[in-house]
Amino acid sequence: MSPRRASRPIRVGGVVIGGGGPIVVQSMTKTDTRDVAATVRQIRELEECGCEIVRVAVPDREAAEAVSSIKRGVRIPVIADVHFDYRLALAALEAGVDGLRLNPGNISDPEQVTAVVRAARAREVPIRIGVNAGSLPKSGHSEAPVAQRMVDAALDQVRLLEGLDFDLIKLSLKAFDVPTTVEAYRLIAERVPYPLHLGVTEAGLPRGGLVRSALGIGILLYLGIGDTIRVSLTADPREEVAAAYEILKGLNLRQRGPTLVSCPTCGRCEVDLFGLARAVEDRLAKLDKPIKVAVMGCVVNGPGEARDADVGIACGKGRGAIFRKGEVVRTVSEDDFLAGLMQEVNAI
Amino acid sequence: MSPRRASRPIRVGGVVIGGGGPIVVQSMTKTDTRDVAATVRQIRELEECGCEIVRVAVPDREAAEAVSSIKRGVRIPVIADVHFDYRLALAALEAGVDGLRLNPGNISDPEQVTAVVRAARAREVPIRIGVNAGSLPKSGHSEAPVAQRMVDAALDQVRLLEGLDFDLIKLSLKAFDVPTTVEAYRLIAERVPYPLHLGVTEAGLPRGGLVRSALGIGILLYLGIGDTIRVSLTADPREEVAAAYEILKGLNLRQRGPTLVSCPTCGRCEVDLFGLARAVEDRLAKLDKPIKVAVMGCVVNGPGEARDADVGIACGKGRGAIFRKGEVVRTVSEDDFLAGLMQEVNAI
Repeated sequence: MSPRRASRPIRVGGVVIGGGGPIVVQSMTKTDTRDVAATVRQIRELEECGCEIVRVAVPDREAAEAVSSIKRGVRIPVIADVHFDYRLALAALEAGVDGLRLNPGNISDPEQVTAVVRAARAREVPIRIGVNAGSLPKSGHSEAPVAQRMVDAALDQVRLLEGLDFDLIKLSLKAFDVPTTVEAYRLIAERVPYPLHLGVTEAGLPRGGLVRSALGIGILLYLGIGDTIRVSLTADPREEVAAAYEILKGLNLRQRGPTLVSCPTCGRCEVDLFGLARAVEDRLAKLDKPIKVAVMGCVVNGPGEARDADVGIACGKGRGAIFRKGEVVRTVSEDDFLAGLMQEVNAI
Repeated sequence: MSPRRASRPIRVGGVVIGGGGPIVVQSMTKTDTRDVAATVRQIRELEECGCEIVRVAVPDREAAEAVSSIKRGVRIPVIADVHFDYRLALAALEAGVDGLRLNPGNISDPEQVTAVVRAARAREVPIRIGVNAGSLPKSGHSEAPVAQRMVDAALDQVRLLEGLDFDLIKLSLKAFDVPTTVEAYRLIAERVPYPLHLGVTEAGLPRGGLVRSALGIGILLYLGIGDTIRVSLTADPREEVAAAYEILKGLNLRQRGPTLVSCPTCGRCEVDLFGLARAVEDRLAKLDKPIKVAVMGCVVNGPGEARDADVGIACGKGRGAIFRKGEVVRTVSEDDFLAGLMQEVNAI
């Protein structure tokens, strides 16, 4: 993996983004922001599964004002997502929001941006310049490739903010198309010192969305680019947080909770391994320990192939071998596969 | 994306792997190979969803012999997966298999490998040298990093095969750890001219397994490495094929069927977008057309953000706007979201 790009750290509420710190996991609420109780409930659920910063949509004044009540009910920093109307950004700042996201594609009037930047600077609240391939400003080189136009839109806004002596900046350049997303981030990474928020936009339902997000975010992280990530899925936002950690765990960038190793099964498998693996995954979801657990479908290859796992089971017909770090510690009958394995897991 | 690595093409049955051709999608059966009817049924299901080569486990002589009956029932090439006992590779060749996969970690005796290579050469059947991080040969530099030991194991076997004047070679170097997997493939890619079969081993159940596979396979493809892919999931093998195409589609390397763009929703959304997106995905699964369909949760951003989609719907409370390439063509009431959208899809 490439060394991580150096970025200038910013602080969103109590959370530092960039500067070589841990890659921060974000999500966004899907409740009506004006419904404070529902929004607080969803943010608390997100906190429980490891979300570190949350964004809420601010489509009107009532939503902006709700931010102050929402913030009283939650622990993690809250970012206001504002489109079109810069006055909503001012109202959200007034309500005590920890960060702003502005889309230069629909808030580009320099006077309006200036008003927001002055208010954000007075409160030391950072702003994300959140460019989306689908909503680029009309101006600019419309003949250039999309990635370049995204970068141009971002740089225009960066210059405007810098001209106002504001540097609490974070940037995102999201597209649905993965190569376009990767290209846009690679280009901007060389042009600015600010931390980058990674994401693939409108990535879709879990299967497609997981793959697309893992591709875009994963390739960039592999290239050393990215300080905070948000997986966008058409699903409960807890799924987004779980997916974000799967990406970070997959690249050994963060640890969180157990990791399940399980074989795809093949013609050698003589047990219901899919069912066992799902049951183990459910049990592991309740644990906080960063252990690696293997569920393997054959006794011949199992313990060796999953030697790196802290604990594992290799299942044969009627009996399974439970192993630790590749060494068999005992065998159990088929009825005890789940209980026996979980006993070893809990013993660690 | 990096230009694709040049590789020497080989032919597995009627399918060409490498040489700059399309990246081939593989899977593996999870039935008992000796159960010919069940195995043929599963392979036919795989053929229907786009699987281009299938591998079957050959753990005993009966399984090896079943290959000839299985081949009569299916259209795609069949590869035999053999561990430990080289005589099973000979039996599978005898049964007319289109390719072999040998694991140098458990078939390494040069005399045994030689016997298999001679028989494969006589039939012009290619061999995949399938190295797994979890089952490396005991010999070798055990102090070296895992990726290097995987490469060393592969190269030992390559030299043995080349020494026997055999070059119908394909290689894989799979690990559960993504950075290790990527490193191993990057190293071997510089050392041999042969096509590479990509995969992340024991990647797990769909969520974790999809992410881990998309990371490992995706990063390598982005780097221009890889000629055929197999996603390993603890799930129905059709899920593996679907995931493989999601990866290839996500990187614009292959097209297959429709692509769903759908927003994650936010506080602006006033309809059940998750339900609508899932219903649309189900309908699209039955279509063969490579069209892009968008399901968006708000009328304000929707049509613009999903401008690249061939058809889409942007849903507001009670009414939605159906658009083509970002231009609204008509509006429909909430009851007609699904039907109206599918009507436009079918009209293309």
